Amino acid sequence: MKENLYQKIACALEEKIRNGTLKTGDKIPSLRMLHREYGVSMTTAVQAYLELEAKGLIISRPQSGYYVSHQPAYLSVPSVSKPSGGTEPIGVETLISKVYSTLSNKDVTRFSLGVPENELLPIAKLNKELVNATRNLQGNGTEYEEIQGNRKLRRDIARLTYTWNGNLNEDDIVTAAGAMNAISFGLMALTQKGDTIAVESPVYFGILQLAKSLGLKVIELPTHPVTGIEPDALKKVLFKIKVCILVSNFNNPLGSCMPDEHKMEVVKMLSERGIPLIEDDLYGDVYFGNSRPKPCKVFDEGLVLWSGSVSKTLAPGYRVGWLAPGKFKDKIVHQKLIHTVSSTTITQETIANFLEKGRYEHHLRKLRSELHANSLQFARAVAEYFPEGSKISQPQGGFMLWVELDKRIDTTELYDLAIRQKISIAPGRMFSLQNQFNNCMRLSYGQRWSEQIDDKLKQLGRIAKGLIV
Amino acid sequence: MKENLYQKIACALEEKIRNGTLKTGDKIPSLRMLHREYGVSMTTAVQAYLELEAKGLIISRPQSGYYVSHQPAYLSVPSVSKPSGGTEPIGVETLISKVYSTLSNKDVTRFSLGVPENELLPIAKLNKELVNATRNLQGNGTEYEEIQGNRKLRRDIARLTYTWNGNLNEDDIVTAAGAMNAISFGLMALTQKGDTIAVESPVYFGILQLAKSLGLKVIELPTHPVTGIEPDALKKVLFKIKVCILVSNFNNPLGSCMPDEHKMEVVKMLSERGIPLIEDDLYGDVYFGNSRPKPCKVFDEGLVLWSGSVSKTLAPGYRVGWLAPGKFKDKIVHQKLIHTVSSTTITQETIANFLEKGRYEHHLRKLRSELHANSLQFARAVAEYFPEGSKISQPQGGFMLWVELDKRIDTTELYDLAIRQKISIAPGRMFSLQNQFNNCMRLSYGQRWSEQIDDKLKQLGRIAKGLIV
Repeated sequence: MKENLYQKIACALEEKIRNGTLKTGDKIPSLRMLHREYGVSMTTAVQAYLELEAKGLIISRPQSGYYVSHQPAYLSVPSVSKPSGGTEPIGVETLISKVYSTLSNKDVTRFSLGVPENELLPIAKLNKELVNATRNLQGNGTEYEEIQGNRKLRRDIARLTYTWNGNLNEDDIVTAAGAMNAISFGLMALTQKGDTIAVESPVYFGILQLAKSLGLKVIELPTHPVTGIEPDALKKVLFKIKVCILVSNFNNPLGSCMPDEHKMEVVKMLSERGIPLIEDDLYGDVYFGNSRPKPCKVFDEGLVLWSGSVSKTLAPGYRVGWLAPGKFKDKIVHQKLIHTVSSTTITQETIANFLEKGRYEHHLRKLRSELHANSLQFARAVAEYFPEGSKISQPQGGFMLWVELDKRIDTTELYDLAIRQKISIAPGRMFSLQNQFNNCMRLSYGQRWSEQIDDKLKQLGRIAKGLIV
Repeated sequence: MKENLYQKIACALEEKIRNGTLKTGDKIPSLRMLHREYGVSMTTAVQAYLELEAKGLIISRPQSGYYVSHQPAYLSVPSVSKPSGGTEPIGVETLISKVYSTLSNKDVTRFSLGVPENELLPIAKLNKELVNATRNLQGNGTEYEEIQGNRKLRRDIARLTYTWNGNLNEDDIVTAAGAMNAISFGLMALTQKGDTIAVESPVYFGILQLAKSLGLKVIELPTHPVTGIEPDALKKVLFKIKVCILVSNFNNPLGSCMPDEHKMEVVKMLSERGIPLIEDDLYGDVYFGNSRPKPCKVFDEGLVLWSGSVSKTLAPGYRVGWLAPGKFKDKIVHQKLIHTVSSTTITQETIANFLEKGRYEHHLRKLRSELHANSLQFARAVAEYFPEGSKISQPQGGFMLWVELDKRIDTTELYDLAIRQKISIAPGRMFSLQNQFNNCMRLSYGQRWSEQIDDKLKQLGRIAKGLIV
């Protein structure tokens, strides 16, 4: 019977996956191959794979095929953070500088990198658009751009928001030199020295540095490695915060993604108190599931400043980002005017052209697929090579993993040992003002998977094991 | 006798200049022509012209020839400013926005423009360097640049400072997205909300807007239209200021240039009190005399943050500027990191290449020559067409004139009338937080001289005359 056949195929594959013959990240035969080489009907093949997919053992990636996605059972997710409230800033700046200093060294395997490696970027196509942009711009790009930003680019960004019912238009968008620049405008427009803001914990260290420099107090909120901040924890501090900043989708460094209910709840509680939310959504386009997660902005009535950039998906060095500042638009445009006058004309136009021709979506499809496969390979390698008891976040997008190691391992020490072997990681301590995450680290999988990467992860695991005494 | 002959020639020309047959800005016969067509020996011709030059009646411009530079006697320089100390910010932002809003309209003759028109910029050569830069950069310019800025560009900028004995090196320079961006980093690094800073008066409104936004109090110093701020006035307020900002060379909007003695005195008095000086020297390369005026930086022992950009000479839309922050370098690099991460890679490399090939100096020679001729034409036109009693600054560099009109003329009103006839000016009121300069305006002569420009100045003069009741 037909039913038996598809189940038989599914069972055989399941066994190979569970006993490790097929490893996480491995490609399995295509439907067509199953059909042709094993004489199975296409319907049967599809049914078998649907069964495996439903069990979470394989995933399909558009235009690429099917891959093993089984996470070995002993890999737990890291703990929910429990920031204490005290601050312990000493040494963090030094640590950040140290990690930064190795980033330009390409001999080093840079698991610490905050952007995907060049090999994953559509550089040739960008070059082509750069030439076109220069040719078509008045003054060939030597002229100041409109203060609010390149109009075409703003229109294209607004169009991107249609996929999550953003329904923004070009007037709602202000461009900036990257998402951090957009967040900087937001904080400068909405806070005063001495104000308090709430952020995730762990949180991208750039946000901490910026807040510190502006004289802001920071409340780090307990954050779940899968679902992001705990709304109840935010509720308790609402009375004392001026602004909340969240990386809602595929958070850096944790990889968490807030469920829609949390997003809705958070926007609601902030709005009731008139507290602006700066939402850094720069990873949202790099989702591994079937559709882009919504940003908090979709539940907003004017208090959400939604920011993004192409720094993580196209061209970090172009410095193209944006902000949809809701009712704070005039304030943001003013900040941009006084601090930078306008954005770089040529790179904004180049990205506008790239988006307009639909090249972005095309590129993202490939990027998502590759990063998803990488994330599975990394998870497998960490499970295989790292000390027993290692925990790992399972991000459904982005290109960062958060790894929690045995309590006895200090990842700052691990950094020092690993860099001697030309491996760099981002120690967990970088991502908090408090003395926590000392046994955690962020790993970037934004590079082409290879045996060499596998070897380096193995090497890193060995060094980590050596630190357990 | 020889002596008689050269004097005779000089006298004849002088008469033609004084009676207006030869007008300010007109080209006079070349030495060679005098020699050939009038049978005068070269020595005699040279002597005659030297005599006229010494009297300030003509000027020589390299590779171009001799021009009438006589300023008709009834054109006085504007008054030394006497800011009262009170502030009157109401309406200024609206006025600035209004003037900005017409800047993208190319049907308008933009005497209000803050940059030279495209026709004066070496656009084709920049395009060529842009292509080279993209080709040579790792990742074709998609990668983040070093935080401190493109190393080659920093080296080239350091080399430019050799002409005034700056003797800076690449480690002393931090790049920024234009000079205002550099100043913004400076103020954010060195001041706190509530601090007081001292500036010129009139002063570029961007500095006022920035200071206001950072919660700084501003002291506007009495400023001479030729020699810049009065050092004695600065001395009196030293006890209460945290930072001083000066546009030392060819100040915007006044056109003033501080004499070396003043620069030395100012640096000395500030240094004695440990007060940093942010020196905005973005017009210094566009001098009309024989050599570049020194910046204050040359007298410095670490407290001068010297800034510049190519926005006024090459490409405003490239967003390439810099700061030599003296002993505050680490603070500035940190500000840059947290607010923008890094500069746009491609445009920085393009400018680096342009400088490296010596193209900048070549371009500047032409630009200076043309702007100098323009400044004389504008002075002549203002003298000829504007209401009697008009005063005008006589900048020896840059591309801005400051015009002081009859007290009865309100230049904000003049703006409204002129814009209807497609002429825009920058009303004086924009350049102060106080209620002053209502009868002044800034005119840009950064455009190719033509009969049409002459007509527009005539028209503007007519409108101004109509405002005297």
